[in-house]
Amino acid sequence: MHIFSERINGMYRDVRSAINEKEKAAVLALTKEQVAGGADIMDINLGPTKGDPVENFVWLAQTVAEATDLPISLDSAKPKMLAEAVRRVKEALPNTRLVINSSTAAPENMEQLIPVAAETGSAIIGLTMDQEGVPGNVEKRVECGATFFMAAMEAGIMPEDIYLDPIILPVNVAQKQPMNVLEAIRQLSMLSDPPPHFILGLSNVSQQCLFRNLLNRTYLVMAISAGLDAAIMDAADKDLVEAAVSAEVLMEKHLYSDDYIKAWKMQKGIAG
Amino acid sequence: MHIFSERINGMYRDVRSAINEKEKAAVLALTKEQVAGGADIMDINLGPTKGDPVENFVWLAQTVAEATDLPISLDSAKPKMLAEAVRRVKEALPNTRLVINSSTAAPENMEQLIPVAAETGSAIIGLTMDQEGVPGNVEKRVECGATFFMAAMEAGIMPEDIYLDPIILPVNVAQKQPMNVLEAIRQLSMLSDPPPHFILGLSNVSQQCLFRNLLNRTYLVMAISAGLDAAIMDAADKDLVEAAVSAEVLMEKHLYSDDYIKAWKMQKGIAG
Repeated sequence: MHIFSERINGMYRDVRSAINEKEKAAVLALTKEQVAGGADIMDINLGPTKGDPVENFVWLAQTVAEATDLPISLDSAKPKMLAEAVRRVKEALPNTRLVINSSTAAPENMEQLIPVAAETGSAIIGLTMDQEGVPGNVEKRVECGATFFMAAMEAGIMPEDIYLDPIILPVNVAQKQPMNVLEAIRQLSMLSDPPPHFILGLSNVSQQCLFRNLLNRTYLVMAISAGLDAAIMDAADKDLVEAAVSAEVLMEKHLYSDDYIKAWKMQKGIAG
Repeated sequence: MHIFSERINGMYRDVRSAINEKEKAAVLALTKEQVAGGADIMDINLGPTKGDPVENFVWLAQTVAEATDLPISLDSAKPKMLAEAVRRVKEALPNTRLVINSSTAAPENMEQLIPVAAETGSAIIGLTMDQEGVPGNVEKRVECGATFFMAAMEAGIMPEDIYLDPIILPVNVAQKQPMNVLEAIRQLSMLSDPPPHFILGLSNVSQQCLFRNLLNRTYLVMAISAGLDAAIMDAADKDLVEAAVSAEVLMEKHLYSDDYIKAWKMQKGIAG
């Protein structure tokens, strides 16, 4: 399970203020907390912050890299700016592995971002949507996922560096989508051997819902059971992380041991 | 989701003592607690108790029926005695719906129990195993499940009164079995339309394990996602019940509402 930390995101007031003021303390503290919780990759997202977004990404990535050597995932829906930010962050942090989050399967979007992944040796996340928007069904998700996967492979990116994101929508506005996403993962798993990774922006499933943590946790387990092996999530949510680890034990992705939570932490080198 | 209460079981010391002493108080209190937690069916199991098992079943069923009108599931691995107990309980409680828990797919076992289900208008649970024991693989589970389902249908039992139990083993001794059970459920779901019900003795997955509640909860969500719609479980484990309800919301088996836990309770007529 690749845990992408969701917490360094300008949508959160503390992070937004840190970016706007170029005050490192909050970002450093949150990064340490996410790493201690088991994050594998630090996703960073500017949210609605002021100033030049490329400069903000460079500052934010450098700040995160002061607290951890983990890979950094640059998260933006603006492909042109994102391409530039990835190049600039790679120059500033040549030894940090990057993830581009994300491209869609729209041709002009893939043309802007896939070459940057190849050029900077970065992994890349492909959303299973194109210029027409988020698919309402399974078939279009599978079609977009396959299109993106093939395009990335053709550019020389290896399957282990490709993540497909079948886009989970809030269950309160689109109650059929959680099942559609699971089915899309099952079908896309058959694309190749080994398959690409599957990732979700987990907390989106519970936007504006009550019982958010319960919904996130329950859906994460369901998705892992369908083949999900990565999620953008709060690594400091202990119940959520433990649900993920136990789901992987039940799927025989970790060897069972009596204290399998501790074994998982030891393997990651985090305090138990 | 059909919640079969697992708590009225002589394996628990309080229940064993209640049966041995014919002291109703503990059974009545536990029954009320399980009903308040959302139990749909009261599973009763004598465990290692003294005296005549048929008489004990009659006493236990009558005691449970003093606290609730819910159906009662008679749980035993001794087919001859179970057949007799079901007949006697039905005489004593003619208006209580019964479930026979359980038959295997072994011919002599089915011959003893399926006719009793037909004769008493009871539902019946079929374990996906035969005289050779619990299958180590998916195929044999599917074969046994299909054999039992066909035999029960031929005896005039309707699919909605047939439960298949693909037998979950403790994850610490058989780590491949949790996945095999999920796959067996997926394959057996295609047997008929509507399919039979699928049930598990949930807590068996975590026998002798640490983090039992976490494993039970996680596996229940995974199994619901594969098609499980019933479980023998502790209805008083609030986290477990809420995990099940949220999984069903995410599978669109309950219509989403903001307080879907409360909606579920209201629908069942239990206090929120």
